[in-house]
Amino acid sequence: MEGGCSMTPLEQTVYLWLEERGVQIEEIAELTFFLQINYIPDVTMEECIENVQTVLTKREVQNAILTGIQLDILAEKEILREPLLQMLRSDESLYGIDEVMSLAILNVYGSIGFTNYGYIDRLKPGILCRLNSKSDGKIHTYLDDLVAAVASAAASRLAHTRHLLTILE
Amino acid sequence: MEGGCSMTPLEQTVYLWLEERGVQIEEIAELTFFLQINYIPDVTMEECIENVQTVLTKREVQNAILTGIQLDILAEKEILREPLLQMLRSDESLYGIDEVMSLAILNVYGSIGFTNYGYIDRLKPGILCRLNSKSDGKIHTYLDDLVAAVASAAASRLAHTRHLLTILE
Amino acid sequence: MEGGCSMTPLEQTVYLWLEERGVQIEEIAELTFFLQINYIPDVTMEECIENVQTVLTKREVQNAILTGIQLDILAEKEILREPLLQMLRSDESLYGIDEVMSLAILNVYGSIGFTNYGYIDRLKPGILCRLNSKSDGKIHTYLDDLVAAVASAAASRLAHTRHLLTILE
Amino acid sequence: MEGGCSMTPLEQTVYLWLEERGVQIEEIAELTFFLQINYIPDVTMEECIENVQTVLTKREVQNAILTGIQLDILAEKEILREPLLQMLRSDESLYGIDEVMSLAILNVYGSIGFTNYGYIDRLKPGILCRLNSKSDGKIHTYLDDLVAAVASAAASRLAHTRHLLTILE
Repeated sequence: MEGGCSMTPLEQTVYLWLEERGVQIEEIAELTFFLQINYIPDVTMEECIENVQTVLTKREVQNAILTGIQLDILAEKEILREPLLQMLRSDESLYGIDEVMSLAILNVYGSIGFTNYGYIDRLKPGILCRLNSKSDGKIHTYLDDLVAAVASAAASRLAHTRHLLTILE
Repeated sequence: MEGGCSMTPLEQTVYLWLEERGVQIEEIAELTFFLQINYIPDVTMEECIENVQTVLTKREVQNAILTGIQLDILAEKEILREPLLQMLRSDESLYGIDEVMSLAILNVYGSIGFTNYGYIDRLKPGILCRLNSKSDGKIHTYLDDLVAAVASAAASRLAHTRHLLTILE
Repeated sequence: MEGGCSMTPLEQTVYLWLEERGVQIEEIAELTFFLQINYIPDVTMEECIENVQTVLTKREVQNAILTGIQLDILAEKEILREPLLQMLRSDESLYGIDEVMSLAILNVYGSIGFTNYGYIDRLKPGILCRLNSKSDGKIHTYLDDLVAAVASAAASRLAHTRHLLTILE
Repeated sequence: MEGGCSMTPLEQTVYLWLEERGVQIEEIAELTFFLQINYIPDVTMEECIENVQTVLTKREVQNAILTGIQLDILAEKEILREPLLQMLRSDESLYGIDEVMSLAILNVYGSIGFTNYGYIDRLKPGILCRLNSKSDGKIHTYLDDLVAAVASAAASRLAHTRHLLTILE
């Protein structure tokens, strides 16, 4: 299992909430793998998982994930006030605060992740497709964007790390 | 009264929620005035109010305000899950999603508002002081930043508009 | 022709520099059309051109375009200092300041444009393909991202405007 | 001297360019100290220097600094085209791309640095005052904002690190 006893309580909460909402770390890492396989042919799933885990140690990322998942849950339980409730329940196209929160995640590893984020957010590969299907009665207006952002940030970190290794060798 | 029948329903909701949370448009405009009086000596309160009102017509601004106020209310009612509840109730210094949302407002009028935002967010003049006092049992973790962002965005718009008028004259 | 005598001198410069670098307003509008045709079946090229033109009236957008094109030209003429010159000439994947500048453009119409930007920046339809080909000895490290950002911002504005019309009808 | 043989060539270039433009790491660290002394009474200059140095290891930060300083130098040498040259030489208030680049630096350590950035960017303590004086014929339109951003990012990192140490103790 990921991280274990060296995790902060907040980090553990993030893993717990992601799991409760049906998101496995491996599924996020699959998106990172999908983004990098054409550029780094020898990239491994293990490397992608490690990078996703490192992204999840960042406080800004943790704050964004907890806030977003909380809003999704409240929309699901219909506790939000109108017209906000309807915007979140329908994932209204002119509501962009979910993208704003994702951007906070992306920025931690610099701007090179923007393109990757937009690409998978529109293509919806893997878990992003499931989170968007709404087939299970769940609301994932925030979560699908947050997952795409974590995967893209991990891809940025992976690219930066690989490049540094090249220099140092 | 502001706007009136030409307002969209969403805009009306924004005015209503702001008023419910104790924020008058004039108080936001006072911050804009405070920010501009040293640069534009003939700036008027009327001009500041108009610019605040125009900022509030923007959909991105409306989305940010409704989402932020909703989170404040839920924190007040203790409906949020821990550890998020405690972060919002204490306005924890390492929780920056309120700043992220404010940035979405600032960006609508370009980057020249960042400095103004940081300046009044730290100085806390006028209404920002009251929103931060927590004396009334209210939680304004998001609202104080959002108000500072709207006031700074209005200051940016005012500067841009004045400059355009200079060119056209 | 676009805008004409109602344009500010700065706006005219933007049109001039874009044309000098081989970019027609119609080509940017084609990207906007490409982004919206699946969502708004009756969208017209005329509407897309109008929205691109409105995006180009914004000062923040003008600043970003002039700064980015200037850097491209200086890279072309090899006037920049190393290692910056090599980063820009090779459009190095870990150099993301071009994306940072594009984000400043996108933000003017809110966060809903991020996804569109990433999507076309990766897919490279139309003019973006030509700007990236480097076949003509030109450096367009900044310009291709800026064009994608203007097209995506225009798509956001178009979506916002259409929605407002629906409400008011 | 800072870093030494473990630095990447790019990092060494950043130190070199900062020094050439008259900025010492200690002067940036003094801004960080100024920002934190009221919140962390036992903060030391050594700790501030270390955090500034860590901020400077980040690729996004390095890219922003090199690009900004390059633009300042070109403005100084009058190599930029008009009207961009005049905007940069006069540090025109409606030109905000310097702030956009600073934001890219701030974002690496999360959004909690925005307020600090705006605060010192307006107050101009220490080195920021000198960079703004223009008394020496130098153009520092970008550099003063970049220095404020690095100092604020270092303050954010310091706050995050101190908090983590509290948890782990």
